[in-house]
Amino acid sequence: VQALILAGGSGTRFWPLSRRSRPKQLLALEGERSLLQETVERIRPLIPPEDVWVVTTRALAAEVRRQLPEVPAAQVLEEPLGRNTAPAIGWAVRSMPEQQRGDVVAVLPADHRVADGAAFRAALARAAEVAESDDWVLTLGVVPRWAETGYGYLELGEALPDGGEGHGSSEPGPPTVRRVARFVEKPTPERAAEYVASGRYLWNAGIFVFRGTTFLEILERLVPELARGLEALARDPGALDAGYAALPAESIDYAVMEKLDGIAMVATVPLDCGWSDLGSWAALAEVLPEDGAGNAVRGDVVAADASGNLLFADRGTIAVLGVEGLAVVRTGDTVLVIPRERSQDVRRLIAELEARGRSELL
Amino acid sequence: VQALILAGGSGTRFWPLSRRSRPKQLLALEGERSLLQETVERIRPLIPPEDVWVVTTRALAAEVRRQLPEVPAAQVLEEPLGRNTAPAIGWAVRSMPEQQRGDVVAVLPADHRVADGAAFRAALARAAEVAESDDWVLTLGVVPRWAETGYGYLELGEALPDGGEGHGSSEPGPPTVRRVARFVEKPTPERAAEYVASGRYLWNAGIFVFRGTTFLEILERLVPELARGLEALARDPGALDAGYAALPAESIDYAVMEKLDGIAMVATVPLDCGWSDLGSWAALAEVLPEDGAGNAVRGDVVAADASGNLLFADRGTIAVLGVEGLAVVRTGDTVLVIPRERSQDVRRLIAELEARGRSELL
Repeated sequence: VQALILAGGSGTRFWPLSRRSRPKQLLALEGERSLLQETVERIRPLIPPEDVWVVTTRALAAEVRRQLPEVPAAQVLEEPLGRNTAPAIGWAVRSMPEQQRGDVVAVLPADHRVADGAAFRAALARAAEVAESDDWVLTLGVVPRWAETGYGYLELGEALPDGGEGHGSSEPGPPTVRRVARFVEKPTPERAAEYVASGRYLWNAGIFVFRGTTFLEILERLVPELARGLEALARDPGALDAGYAALPAESIDYAVMEKLDGIAMVATVPLDCGWSDLGSWAALAEVLPEDGAGNAVRGDVVAADASGNLLFADRGTIAVLGVEGLAVVRTGDTVLVIPRERSQDVRRLIAELEARGRSELL
Repeated sequence: VQALILAGGSGTRFWPLSRRSRPKQLLALEGERSLLQETVERIRPLIPPEDVWVVTTRALAAEVRRQLPEVPAAQVLEEPLGRNTAPAIGWAVRSMPEQQRGDVVAVLPADHRVADGAAFRAALARAAEVAESDDWVLTLGVVPRWAETGYGYLELGEALPDGGEGHGSSEPGPPTVRRVARFVEKPTPERAAEYVASGRYLWNAGIFVFRGTTFLEILERLVPELARGLEALARDPGALDAGYAALPAESIDYAVMEKLDGIAMVATVPLDCGWSDLGSWAALAEVLPEDGAGNAVRGDVVAADASGNLLFADRGTIAVLGVEGLAVVRTGDTVLVIPRERSQDVRRLIAELEARGRSELL
């Protein structure tokens, strides 16, 4: 099994800690290791570093290689620019030697958190098994914990004969595998609540498992323009910059997964492993250790008469008194103060900084 | 006229900007100059730097001399330790050569703010005139702007014949001089409201004007232990450390001013000059420039959907969104976040840091 880690993201949700030159996946938000390093460590018992591939951008490649010295440098692939996930995955698979391309490839985002690594590996191993034996497209779907409207969902179909309900949660055994009836886009709050209540939906976490060659065949049928572009790049690697820029910038979800009906068999392994995509400072607050007053804390913090805050000191000291429900983030050059539940609005501050030409802070 | 500037304070109200090694009077809270430098500049048209004396602590003396190169170094007097204002003033006057000791001495705190320097100088000049001609004790009392309970008050007596109501505010002329009926301690809120409504009370701003020799005579009558101690120090300057530590640690207000009835004539010049003792971050917020949304701002600040905050970046950048009524202060090593109206509670954080042995932050 080859691992293909998508590490080209440039998200701004963890500003001011995340910067253009140091996006979320390269940050150590919880422990000592970055989310990218955690991703590689998590799968190591299953997939050794020499079978790990990373797709990232040119700007980030040096830091990625520095963080992952155990991954062969040539397997850190540098996109000339970001063109969304379908080109990134297609290009990476097409860049593998023919033998690895025929292997099962596990596509993994580099910026997710998993509490229970063993459960994650068990699901991944099961998915790889099915992808290898039956040539199916597999996805790991997260058992939803609330009616999230920020994710796509998978609707479950029947269980596969060899991974069905017989292996229920009450007894140990290989994780269940079930068909995916369909992929659905981000729902309304009402629809999301129905999905979660029904027990028939999983969160689409962007984790996919398939043979590389199978994926390339699917691209030829569903996104022929992309398949042709990748073929041209393979013939003339010197034309990478112009060729890559010309690839259709589509996500694997929209361009491939939602259109597989009649093209390929799709199944999922439900994942219940303390997964989080850490989509904001508020999401990080949910998983950081708490002080006695319900403040999620990292770094050097002094709090008095304060509760329910996220207090994140990457450098220096944060001292708070008499405040509630805030996110306070201190980096070497900047401090952010924002209500915890509005932490997604950090993008408005970034827009303001962009408008003021303050690119040194971005 | 000699100026005697009290610059030994070690207040903590502007933590984390103020530190033991850099208390409030040495900080530039508004402009480029520190409050101490502003104090010297303010009186310069009246009292040249060669007639300025500064009492400070040993730990602060080097920085005081650095900030005031125009004041003779020998006139920056170094207390071995702080013993409150009565010993500081007595010792400084006693340290002056005999001729200056006979001059009028204006005692000025080093950490106050004055918006209208000309009005301040006019009042000070008037007070010095009366102190010189009539040998009275003068004080500059601030016309109260609200029912403050954190200050002492002066109750006004009748106007002096040569400075009375005839020179009202409607026509220019020398400031009014009025007798002080009594000094009163910090009042209750009800009492403070009565004082302000009556129009017969002024804030005691700790600014006193008298002949040095007159003050020493008063000390002999009211605080003989202090007078004897100062005399001993004058005879044996080599015993300063032990001798100074043995002086009674009393304030000029309690030990002298409140007890002058029958001892000396006391008068005041009402001061209406935009005075503030800058007693907290909230008080500073009242005088800093505002952005369009009512945030008092200093330094590099980005605010969106935020109003009524004090945003003070001594170093680096402060970015806030969606918060109201906070004080956010960022220094080189620390950030403080506290509700603006609770900014006096910063002492609780300092106590917490002391308890944790974090003296490097104090």
